[in-house]
Amino acid sequence: MAKAVARPVPFTHVHLDDVFWAPKLKVNRERTLRAQYDQCQETGRIGAFELGWKPGDPNQPHIFWDSDVAKWIEAVAYSLADQPDADLERLVNEVAELVASAQQPDGYLNVHFTVAEPEKRWTNLRDWHELYCAGHLIEAAVAHHAATGNRVLLDALCRYADYIGTVFGTGEGQKRGYCGHEEIELALVKLAGATGEQRYLDLASYFVDERGQGDPHYFDVEAQARGEGVEALLHRHGGHSRYEYNQSHVPVREQSEAVGHAVRAMYLYSAMADLAGALGDDALKAACERLWADLTERKMYVTGGIGPSSRNEGFTSPFDLPNETAYAETCAAIGLVFWAQRLLQLDLDSRYADVMERALYNGTISGVSLDGERFFYVNPLASSGGHHRQSWFGCACCPPNLARMMASLAGYVASTTADGVALHLYAAGTIDADGRQLTVATEYPWDGTVTITVGTAGNWDLALRIPGWCRDWSVSVNGLPTEAEVTKGYAALRRDWMAGDQVTLNLAMPVALVEACPRVGDDLGRVAITRGPVVYCLEAEDNGIDPRLLALPAGAKFVTRWEPGMLGGVVVIDSVALAPRLDGWQGELYRPAGSTAWTQVPLRAIPYYAWDNRDAGAMAVWLPLH
Amino acid sequence: MAKAVARPVPFTHVHLDDVFWAPKLKVNRERTLRAQYDQCQETGRIGAFELGWKPGDPNQPHIFWDSDVAKWIEAVAYSLADQPDADLERLVNEVAELVASAQQPDGYLNVHFTVAEPEKRWTNLRDWHELYCAGHLIEAAVAHHAATGNRVLLDALCRYADYIGTVFGTGEGQKRGYCGHEEIELALVKLAGATGEQRYLDLASYFVDERGQGDPHYFDVEAQARGEGVEALLHRHGGHSRYEYNQSHVPVREQSEAVGHAVRAMYLYSAMADLAGALGDDALKAACERLWADLTERKMYVTGGIGPSSRNEGFTSPFDLPNETAYAETCAAIGLVFWAQRLLQLDLDSRYADVMERALYNGTISGVSLDGERFFYVNPLASSGGHHRQSWFGCACCPPNLARMMASLAGYVASTTADGVALHLYAAGTIDADGRQLTVATEYPWDGTVTITVGTAGNWDLALRIPGWCRDWSVSVNGLPTEAEVTKGYAALRRDWMAGDQVTLNLAMPVALVEACPRVGDDLGRVAITRGPVVYCLEAEDNGIDPRLLALPAGAKFVTRWEPGMLGGVVVIDSVALAPRLDGWQGELYRPAGSTAWTQVPLRAIPYYAWDNRDAGAMAVWLPLH
Repeated sequence: MAKAVARPVPFTHVHLDDVFWAPKLKVNRERTLRAQYDQCQETGRIGAFELGWKPGDPNQPHIFWDSDVAKWIEAVAYSLADQPDADLERLVNEVAELVASAQQPDGYLNVHFTVAEPEKRWTNLRDWHELYCAGHLIEAAVAHHAATGNRVLLDALCRYADYIGTVFGTGEGQKRGYCGHEEIELALVKLAGATGEQRYLDLASYFVDERGQGDPHYFDVEAQARGEGVEALLHRHGGHSRYEYNQSHVPVREQSEAVGHAVRAMYLYSAMADLAGALGDDALKAACERLWADLTERKMYVTGGIGPSSRNEGFTSPFDLPNETAYAETCAAIGLVFWAQRLLQLDLDSRYADVMERALYNGTISGVSLDGERFFYVNPLASSGGHHRQSWFGCACCPPNLARMMASLAGYVASTTADGVALHLYAAGTIDADGRQLTVATEYPWDGTVTITVGTAGNWDLALRIPGWCRDWSVSVNGLPTEAEVTKGYAALRRDWMAGDQVTLNLAMPVALVEACPRVGDDLGRVAITRGPVVYCLEAEDNGIDPRLLALPAGAKFVTRWEPGMLGGVVVIDSVALAPRLDGWQGELYRPAGSTAWTQVPLRAIPYYAWDNRDAGAMAVWLPLH
Repeated sequence: MAKAVARPVPFTHVHLDDVFWAPKLKVNRERTLRAQYDQCQETGRIGAFELGWKPGDPNQPHIFWDSDVAKWIEAVAYSLADQPDADLERLVNEVAELVASAQQPDGYLNVHFTVAEPEKRWTNLRDWHELYCAGHLIEAAVAHHAATGNRVLLDALCRYADYIGTVFGTGEGQKRGYCGHEEIELALVKLAGATGEQRYLDLASYFVDERGQGDPHYFDVEAQARGEGVEALLHRHGGHSRYEYNQSHVPVREQSEAVGHAVRAMYLYSAMADLAGALGDDALKAACERLWADLTERKMYVTGGIGPSSRNEGFTSPFDLPNETAYAETCAAIGLVFWAQRLLQLDLDSRYADVMERALYNGTISGVSLDGERFFYVNPLASSGGHHRQSWFGCACCPPNLARMMASLAGYVASTTADGVALHLYAAGTIDADGRQLTVATEYPWDGTVTITVGTAGNWDLALRIPGWCRDWSVSVNGLPTEAEVTKGYAALRRDWMAGDQVTLNLAMPVALVEACPRVGDDLGRVAITRGPVVYCLEAEDNGIDPRLLALPAGAKFVTRWEPGMLGGVVVIDSVALAPRLDGWQGELYRPAGSTAWTQVPLRAIPYYAWDNRDAGAMAVWLPLH
């Protein structure tokens, strides 16, 4: 049975005051959330819910605008639950009430298809994001109610979900459809959890299991009903399989390869993991495990970025991981975190937490500037210097997605298990796991020493994740070295805890060069510099040269230094690199091998997530060995 | 003054009976030309000239069909001039007469805009290839007349060119336009040469010099006349500058960087070189030299392929030369040969011949299978095994372009200079350079010994190109070692030649590893295997493994062997490579650097041009050093 073996300790029960996340959460709260409110206002996304738009007016509400506002509501709600803020609460309540006011008498709630194209409601599930927007509104409603106790949005979204439940399903007269952009599935699981209503879980199951069923395919049925040829989607997405693009090529239980649009895939797989746990559904869990292996063993950047291609915002062939043209959408890495956390509750296997950590410290937070107000949609692993964060996007899915992930970050730290508490991420702060209190002190990820003070006596397991990146670790209790059995990457300490007991985990955290599987052609003969969970990169700013030209000499030695004033406080890594002399190349592009002189130059690496926060310049993660 | 210092010895005066080209010319004559005739027939391209198509009929003649038939006529004409063939001559005369019969009373000659959209004549020079098709018909007509003496096509195209001359120009009531796809410019220079008519040279000059002039831009003027917004082209070509795409962003004399669509660029630059020589125009020559430096020092593959991107079929940023996604259109490499040969006549500088040779032995002839009947449009330098030649294309520019280049290949071998004869390419055969007879014996490119027997007495220079790839060479006359002064890469021997004098050039031709300028990120830390002018590659077929996984150990030794029965006769290169052990990678994508074991495996390299002629499999040119 696939029933979950663990439950996340909710972020409301974890308080972070650490050196790494706490300042970022503060920036998120104080800068990002407000900046995004301004963007949603200025672009008309919030005002659109007044339903004042009329044909002929400028700035027609876009089909995915609702989701941007929804994610902002969700992010603010998480932030309020963690840290009250009267001003933000007033704002979010206003917006929530405005959103709810846009609900139609039959329960429908979607700005575009209410004011702009009402006759097209539910006529193109494949492309028009209606159920996707509904899903984000549901997530927002659940979060808003949990944070504020205000039911206005939750009640509205229950009505909407109930209406959706009348439209879609296998019953007489119902549409056997599902959304081209998955999202509503995981949202309905949340709604079931918030309301205790089984029918929302059933509807989530329907959407997940109906996907890829049916012959003819539902998306072709509705395309023909619109008078379109069935080739339409094939052309829209540049020759990619029209079904694989949105993971509807085969029923989900038969899927084994991560395909198509990466964000859609992550949201679907997250719902599959949710349902596997909620229903004890082994087949769904097995599908997740196959997809996980395909994704993390063949299709994931070292940063946790996924989906290399801009053509489909998604997956290509195994081991195709180009660096400079990497798409690696911020939302996709965030989606990977969502999925990893869910699988982790099913198994308590640290390989899920390893990937979650990889994405959290690298490929997700690279998406936001240190000042919290500029964002990457695309996260390449090398750059000529022309790729920069922007304050907003026409398709603005990533900024509020980052905001809600950051505001709920503390929720990824720990789980309650049958036998006690499991720690996944290490960050200074306090944890209340169903009454078991822990206080964590650490400078992680800059230092590998983690001290956990037990606040609640009793006989229970404290399971400590030993990160996959760590080759040398030890644990002591009250200063005495202790043996701990490691199961699926977690070192479990079971004892009669006394309040005040101190557990110290020492994770050796040297600079480590990593290599990719040789099948990754773009990284063959190259290494990436890492330390702990943090992947490093080289920027021209620090190295005085386009770092894409630099090579690492064999046996390079590395020196680390904590730089509190740099990039919000980072450990930098210094070493020497080899730089080719370019002055002999005038007039030539190809020469006999070995005719380039290489000179030693200083090398400085900074955390990848912090790149592009200073002067524009080239960047590289993978360096050739020379 | 930029007047030409040399004239190519026409291919009709060079007879090749060598080991490399002669068999390929035979395949071209006996297989390719007939297969392409069949394709042009079956697809309706030839029949279209009967002007029988009516609105509503299937298979509407495409705007560029005329050019495919024209290039086939040109190729057959060259072949006939070299080797009479009554059957081919009957066919080409039939087709030429059919083409001429499609001429309209006013001289216009274009199938699509006669039968399908007559009202759109000259309304979209930017996109619709009208003058491009005219240019190819002119080249066909000149070749057909030269080969057969038949004037039917030449007379028709003179009438068409005269009509074009009334439509375009700076005079009252004339359109100040020029073609979005250059081609007519170099064709008009040929027509001027064939007819002695200055007005065709003047029209070529007009088209070249008008390009990029004018504010508003001509292409915007005509777009607005069509009722389009000026943004149309910007969208068509994925955000690339609408003007740079077709080299009309600034007047040609101000251009310094190779930009946009690569074939268009090559045809334009070729016309610029033609006019520089014909008119002694130093400014045009200087522009060519700037563009040449930009192209060959920053934007050319080691195979002579150019134009890395499929998005614009053309150029991107300097040093952006990805291997597996290389576009490197066959036509673009052919265009580079055209341009290089023209610049070579202006300067007799072997850097032009070096590039010409690089493209001829590698990136052009890779475009045709050894059986002469399948073609690459795109010539990547690495492949997962999914890229294969096809017998034809909807856009079929490359196959007949290859056919005409191959049929006139002997015309690239030598030039007549003011002082004598210059040899650019080495191939066994006979050369009659304005009465000076030479007989060449060599196994080039498989062996570097070239013996030239002088057939005509007299006092003149024999200039022998010392290839840029050659680091060690010597020359002897009648067995006696001789010093020769090398000027711009040509070793000049001046003496009173006696009939029967024998000159022997020894070009050391070891296996040579080459490296790219380190700015080429995709090749950093990698080498390509070459020997003489031939670039080698590794195919899975010979190596039993995806060669993209292989690395070369430092100090690898190479053994060459002539394999007469393999791939039409090639020298293969054997060595050892290092292959990563993949069996430790189950379940992992990233590991500590150095944890992969590498084992020695046999390596076999074959000439790049000959890849994909056996079982489908992966291929690589650039190998990392390990």
